[in-house]
Amino acid sequence: MSTKKPQLRLGAFLPSTGHHVASWRHPEAQADGGLNFQHYKRLAQTAERGKFDMIFFADGVAVRDRNQGADVLSRNGKLVHFEPLTLLSALSVVTENIGLTATVSTTYNEPYHLARKFASLDYLSGGRAGWNLVTSATEAEALNFNQEKHMEHTLRYERAKEFVDVVTKLWDSWEDDAFLHDKESGIYFDPNKLHVPNHKGEHFSVRGPLNVARPIQGYPVIIQAGSSEDGKDLAAQTAEVIFTAQQTLAEAQAFYTDVKGRLVQYGRSPDHLKIMPGVFPVIGKTEQEAKDKFDQIQELIDPVVGLNLLGSMIGGFDLSGYPLDGPLPDLPETNGGKSRQQLLTDLARRENLTIRQLYLWIAGARGHRQILGTPEQIADQLEDWFVNGGADGFNIMPPWLPGGLDEFVDLVIPELQRRGLFRTEYEARTLRENLGLPRPVNQFSKVATREAAIA
Amino acid sequence: MSTKKPQLRLGAFLPSTGHHVASWRHPEAQADGGLNFQHYKRLAQTAERGKFDMIFFADGVAVRDRNQGADVLSRNGKLVHFEPLTLLSALSVVTENIGLTATVSTTYNEPYHLARKFASLDYLSGGRAGWNLVTSATEAEALNFNQEKHMEHTLRYERAKEFVDVVTKLWDSWEDDAFLHDKESGIYFDPNKLHVPNHKGEHFSVRGPLNVARPIQGYPVIIQAGSSEDGKDLAAQTAEVIFTAQQTLAEAQAFYTDVKGRLVQYGRSPDHLKIMPGVFPVIGKTEQEAKDKFDQIQELIDPVVGLNLLGSMIGGFDLSGYPLDGPLPDLPETNGGKSRQQLLTDLARRENLTIRQLYLWIAGARGHRQILGTPEQIADQLEDWFVNGGADGFNIMPPWLPGGLDEFVDLVIPELQRRGLFRTEYEARTLRENLGLPRPVNQFSKVATREAAIA
Repeated sequence: MSTKKPQLRLGAFLPSTGHHVASWRHPEAQADGGLNFQHYKRLAQTAERGKFDMIFFADGVAVRDRNQGADVLSRNGKLVHFEPLTLLSALSVVTENIGLTATVSTTYNEPYHLARKFASLDYLSGGRAGWNLVTSATEAEALNFNQEKHMEHTLRYERAKEFVDVVTKLWDSWEDDAFLHDKESGIYFDPNKLHVPNHKGEHFSVRGPLNVARPIQGYPVIIQAGSSEDGKDLAAQTAEVIFTAQQTLAEAQAFYTDVKGRLVQYGRSPDHLKIMPGVFPVIGKTEQEAKDKFDQIQELIDPVVGLNLLGSMIGGFDLSGYPLDGPLPDLPETNGGKSRQQLLTDLARRENLTIRQLYLWIAGARGHRQILGTPEQIADQLEDWFVNGGADGFNIMPPWLPGGLDEFVDLVIPELQRRGLFRTEYEARTLRENLGLPRPVNQFSKVATREAAIA
Repeated sequence: MSTKKPQLRLGAFLPSTGHHVASWRHPEAQADGGLNFQHYKRLAQTAERGKFDMIFFADGVAVRDRNQGADVLSRNGKLVHFEPLTLLSALSVVTENIGLTATVSTTYNEPYHLARKFASLDYLSGGRAGWNLVTSATEAEALNFNQEKHMEHTLRYERAKEFVDVVTKLWDSWEDDAFLHDKESGIYFDPNKLHVPNHKGEHFSVRGPLNVARPIQGYPVIIQAGSSEDGKDLAAQTAEVIFTAQQTLAEAQAFYTDVKGRLVQYGRSPDHLKIMPGVFPVIGKTEQEAKDKFDQIQELIDPVVGLNLLGSMIGGFDLSGYPLDGPLPDLPETNGGKSRQQLLTDLARRENLTIRQLYLWIAGARGHRQILGTPEQIADQLEDWFVNGGADGFNIMPPWLPGGLDEFVDLVIPELQRRGLFRTEYEARTLRENLGLPRPVNQFSKVATREAAIA
């Protein structure tokens, strides 16, 4: 198989009704999708039919209602939805091979709970769990957890770094072959293969051990999405997949080179971190049909919703006092997601967009790359970035669901397969193996080598 | 249907390999059951075939290893297992009618996470979720959550009371009919039916609203198991099911009368709290066969395990210095589960048991009621308590799994059905309806009446 072309990786990023801000109003969207298990079952099985590496759920522990009056809020179709770990656990039963990944914040969780839930999901799914580590970016979450404001950016990343350290120690509490289940002797496990982490650090004191055996994958796959300097450093040290928002091949190449170059100092191979920019595809039989489809959903955006979306994407800044058809004003620096604000400001300046044009522009992909076209045109774009050092794969963001995913699986995936760029069958049962990532060696095991351990 | 006999309620309490301390060594036990989804799927489907009201999982956020050397610990077959909310979510997909209930501690969790996960499970399962509220009783858990010792008993219960208050407010964030999903107008929900809890109390500041709609059951069914004065008071105020350990009918009647009598002061009907003592059944074709089966599993207990079990059941007291065939010494008061220590001390004095006899006695039911006999004898015992004001139903604790549950469903359930004491088909789809419990009215709704709200 050494002559086989390099294979690209695909994630299916599946928010309830789709990625477009007006997705729930689309005729083909499941408007109550957020709390409809049959809807998610269909999505997961469709993604698996398309041989996606993984499905992915974003998450936050609050209703994101900042700066929103009832008029805006009541038009939002994405406020209520399943908690992702419970949802992924249920989906593990109706799928066989696809990875099951979701966001959990290190700022509003405890490492013991997180290590345990992902280990449990890894056992339920036969080794298909993945954790997208975020530090959270909204004050609404702080207010649900006994705090008056959001933790400061640098401190959040310090906490996150120690959090990963604790979580991996907990996953390493038991060696892979610790459990003997020997009914005859009465010995259930080998006590030499139990390691009590006894972690005492700046942010956490966690004795352990974990009350789940070492995950099937060693560690569930660790994903990150931060593009700040702190974020890229943490990713270089600990992440195995990065989801990122990149607009042009040049930007994507710069990001790719930057992040991959940071791995060496942590003794890691560049192959052991997969960079997967987000892509929002609108698919048509012709280019014109794709454009018409896009126009159709753009027309469903109520102006109060568009303006508010833009405000929240640039850090919670209230734009209601500025003319819709005028330029984006200069923005104060925020404590939230810095990289996204910068990205949108750059875009507005570069393309000379008004506020209205900018909100229409982000309404779909929310800062990610939009591609409108035929299946061949979309495959061309993906191949271009993949073969030219801009990406190891892509996180596909369907505009509306389930229709947008169906089209990608039925039209674009076969085109990628024809080109030899994407699998026609899963290589393995675990997410880690399908992604081509090494299984981490237990850090407490006597045979552990520094090179093989990812943490 | 008014002539139908009152129906008893049944829970299936399902720890990985069974309730007996040596259960995992039993020839019919699934030794790796704690992390084996196929095992749990079989258990849940068997319980549903038997028309049980619910399955139930106990839980703790630590490996319970206090006072245990490697020699004891390595013989323990119950240290690692699924996290219960992920497991119940997966089981929701392979069952249709049975209730899905599990323990989550109020001491080592945040109300927002808990409200959200149970609401999510309620949607995944079509209204079958139940929460067993505990305040935790082991120091091992404190050490996994940045604390040096376990929170004091009274403070734990104060926190628990406020915790329930916050959780029910979060579940009431949205009225039942808040979501319109109106694609035409673009209005997703009626803003008058959103209620932001804005809770500020002694232990918690939680703004809300919850990012899950109001659970299908209004609230998932709330279960408790505390038998201390604090525990009984909290249950009278907030619980809808109580699991309890009672040895004799007279004790059970006293507990039943005591707890039911406390409900009036909170404006609640005695029917709205179901009292379900634990029962550990050993079933034989003859009484002698049942006794032989029990002897068989008792012989599998290693003495170091039995002694350690007793020590931990009486509050973490080290008994290794006392003669195995001598009496239980006087015990110091502990900060853990007070009621269980008292129950065991009373038993040892009443029956004049040595330390060895006491550990053999608790090895099975761990303080709960053991019944050895034929299906008819077991049904007689359950009927006796049920018709004489000792219980509304029972939480069945199979000695080993899956065999012990299979026998109960195949032999005892049909006998209870023949007597007209137990359903032959589920009455409804939700746990709350099957248990005959009222659906709580939203406390923020303008039509809410004090009587109908349970919180």
